[in-house]
Amino acid sequence: MMKNDLNFSGGPGVLPESVLAEAQQAIASVPEVGLSILGISHRSDWFAAVVAEAERNIRELLKLPDSHAILFLQGGATLQFSMIPMLLLRGSGKTAEYLRTGYWSGKAIPEAALEGDVRVLWDGEAQGFRRLPGADELACAADAAYLHYVSNETVEGTQFHDIPGIDGVPRVCDMSSDFLSRPIDPERYDLIYAHAQKNLGPAGVTVVIVRRALLERVPAGLPALLDYRSHLNARSIFNTPPVFAIYVVLLVTRWLLNDVGGLERMAAVNRGKAEALYRAIDQSQGFYEGWAALNDRSLMNVVFRLQSAQLEADFLERAAAEGFSGLAGHRSLGGIRASIYNAMTPAAVAALGAFMQDFTAQRSA
Amino acid sequence: MMKNDLNFSGGPGVLPESVLAEAQQAIASVPEVGLSILGISHRSDWFAAVVAEAERNIRELLKLPDSHAILFLQGGATLQFSMIPMLLLRGSGKTAEYLRTGYWSGKAIPEAALEGDVRVLWDGEAQGFRRLPGADELACAADAAYLHYVSNETVEGTQFHDIPGIDGVPRVCDMSSDFLSRPIDPERYDLIYAHAQKNLGPAGVTVVIVRRALLERVPAGLPALLDYRSHLNARSIFNTPPVFAIYVVLLVTRWLLNDVGGLERMAAVNRGKAEALYRAIDQSQGFYEGWAALNDRSLMNVVFRLQSAQLEADFLERAAAEGFSGLAGHRSLGGIRASIYNAMTPAAVAALGAFMQDFTAQRSA
Repeated sequence: MMKNDLNFSGGPGVLPESVLAEAQQAIASVPEVGLSILGISHRSDWFAAVVAEAERNIRELLKLPDSHAILFLQGGATLQFSMIPMLLLRGSGKTAEYLRTGYWSGKAIPEAALEGDVRVLWDGEAQGFRRLPGADELACAADAAYLHYVSNETVEGTQFHDIPGIDGVPRVCDMSSDFLSRPIDPERYDLIYAHAQKNLGPAGVTVVIVRRALLERVPAGLPALLDYRSHLNARSIFNTPPVFAIYVVLLVTRWLLNDVGGLERMAAVNRGKAEALYRAIDQSQGFYEGWAALNDRSLMNVVFRLQSAQLEADFLERAAAEGFSGLAGHRSLGGIRASIYNAMTPAAVAALGAFMQDFTAQRSA
Repeated sequence: MMKNDLNFSGGPGVLPESVLAEAQQAIASVPEVGLSILGISHRSDWFAAVVAEAERNIRELLKLPDSHAILFLQGGATLQFSMIPMLLLRGSGKTAEYLRTGYWSGKAIPEAALEGDVRVLWDGEAQGFRRLPGADELACAADAAYLHYVSNETVEGTQFHDIPGIDGVPRVCDMSSDFLSRPIDPERYDLIYAHAQKNLGPAGVTVVIVRRALLERVPAGLPALLDYRSHLNARSIFNTPPVFAIYVVLLVTRWLLNDVGGLERMAAVNRGKAEALYRAIDQSQGFYEGWAALNDRSLMNVVFRLQSAQLEADFLERAAAEGFSGLAGHRSLGGIRASIYNAMTPAAVAALGAFMQDFTAQRSA
C-alpha cells in the first residue's frame, strides 16, 4: 500500500502530516468557529483573518516589502500565463521576453503571443532542456515589456540558482514548484506566481505577488476577474475564493514559520535531501543517469533515467511494492522523477536513496 | 456554539454529514489509494475515475443527453460571466439578452458588455427585485446571440418556477444556487453553469454543462484556459484541477443518487422545507415580512424582514445563542435570510420554524 510519507509525486505533492491532521479537523469543525470549513462563509470575520494571516506569514517568510501585494487567485499557473500579458503586454507596444527552458515555460509562450509581441530569448529544446542559460547567453533588451522565466522546471528537473534578466525590466517569475523552498531577494522581482500544489497546499489556489506600481496602468476592458486590482481591492475575496485551499496554505505557512523555522532552514533541509539523491545517482557508476546538467540541478525534482525502459519499469514496480509512489517521470519525458518538495522528509529521502542503492546492487550483481 | 446542521449560510453552505465524514477520511487517506487526497496526482487513474463518475452521476441525476458535455472548471460563476460572452457574443454581430432580476444577474451584465452588445430585457431593480418577469413581459428577439438569466437569486430569494426565453435562441442559465435541487428539462438549455458551494460541494469548482454544438464555432484568439474546448478535450484535466473540491462533488452526487434517491425526491424535500418557513412567515400576522412576491419565492433562500433593525439584531442574537448561524441577510440587502440548500435537513428547518414562532410569541406578548 502507498504511504503518504513516501509520496514523491510531482504535484499535487505531499503535505506535512501535522497540516493534514489540522485540515482533517477543519472538515468536521474549525475549532474557533464550530462549523465545517466547507460551510463557512467566505465573508466571515474568521475567513478574513485566515487570508490576512496567510498573507502576513508569506510576507514574513519572504521578507517581502510593502511595495509588493500578495493575492490568492484561482485558475492555476495557466491563468497567470494569460493575466500577466493582459496586464503588461497588451497595448504596450513593447515586446515580452521569455526563456524557454522546459515544458512549463514553453506552455506560457503561446498564451503571451495572443496579447502582443513575444521574443524567445533562449530556447533549450535542442539540448533536451537539460541545461539553463548563463547570464552571458541572454541578450536582454532594456526596453522589453518584461522578462518571464520559470525558476524550477518540474518535468526536466532544472532550477535557476541565480536570477536571470536585467534589473529595470520587470522580472516575472513562475515559482510554482519552488516557492517558499528557499529565501529569495524579493526586490528583484516584479511579479511572482505559484500555484499551491507543490510546496504550499492543495490544488485550487495560486499565490500572486505583484509590485503595486505595476497596477497603476492597467489596459481598459479586462474582465473583472482577470484584473489583479479586483482581487487587491477585495483582499482576495472578490468572488468566492477556494476557502479550504487557502486555509491549508495558512496551515503550511505556520508550519514553515514555527516547525521548520523559516526559509533559510527550509533551504538547508532541501539541499540536504537533494544531495542525498544526486549522490545516489553520481555514485551509481552510470546505473542511474541524471537528466539535468550538474550546475542546473533542481533541489525539488530529481530526474534520472536507467539504462532501459524495462529497467525503469522494474524500478517503479519494486519501488511501489515498498510503498513508494509518484516516481514515474512526467508523461512528456518518461524516466524517473523524485519530487522532494518542502514536506518530503529527509528520512523518506534517505529511504529512497537506500532503495536506489539496493536496486543497483541487485541488478548489477 | 454553532452547529453544522443549523448552518443556514447563503454559501458556502452546509454539506451532508456523511459527505463530511468521507471527505475527512480522504484528507488522511483515500481508501482505494492509500494516500491523502491532497497529494494524489490529478493525472492518476484514480482521479480520472473520480471525474468520470462525477460526470456520469450528474448526467444521471439531470437525465442529460449526450448532446451536452459536463465540465469542471475554476474561477466561479464570475469567470463564466466572461467565458460565455467570449464564446457566444464576441464577433457574432448579434445582441445578448440579459434578465436583471437581482444582485447576481446584475453582476453578469457589465462583463458581457465588454464582449459585445447587450440588451437588458427586463430590469427588476425599481421593484426591489422582489418579483420576476412573466413570459408576457419579455420581448425576446429571435435573432439574439443568447438569453442569460439566473434561475435563483440568493440575495433577494426569488426563483424562476418556469423557463423564460424562446426556444431556438441559446438559453444560458446561471444555476449556481439551485443546481441539482430539482429536475430540469435539459434539452431546453444550451449552457448551464453552477459554482459548487451551494448544493454541490466546496468553493473552488464550477460545473458547466454545454451543448456540444455551441463549441463548433469558437472565436480565434481565446486564452486556452478560457476556451471550453480545452477542458472538453482534456476531460476537465486541462491544467491541474481542484482535486479535492471535485472529489467532494462526487461524494455529493453519490449522496443524491443513493441516499436521497434522485432529484424528484430532492425537490419534494426542498418544497417541504421551504413551505415550513414560508408558513411561519405567513402565519406571523406581519411580524415577519417575506421579501419575494408569492409566486416567485425561492425554495433555496427564504428572505424576510422584521419590523425594525433592532428586532432583526435581537432575532439574530437569540438565534445564534441556540446554535443557528448564517441567518444574516446579504450585506447588500440586510434583513434575514435562511438558506436551505439540499443538505439542510427538514429537522433543522423545523427547528428554525419553531424558533421563529417562539420569537414572535415572546416579542408580541
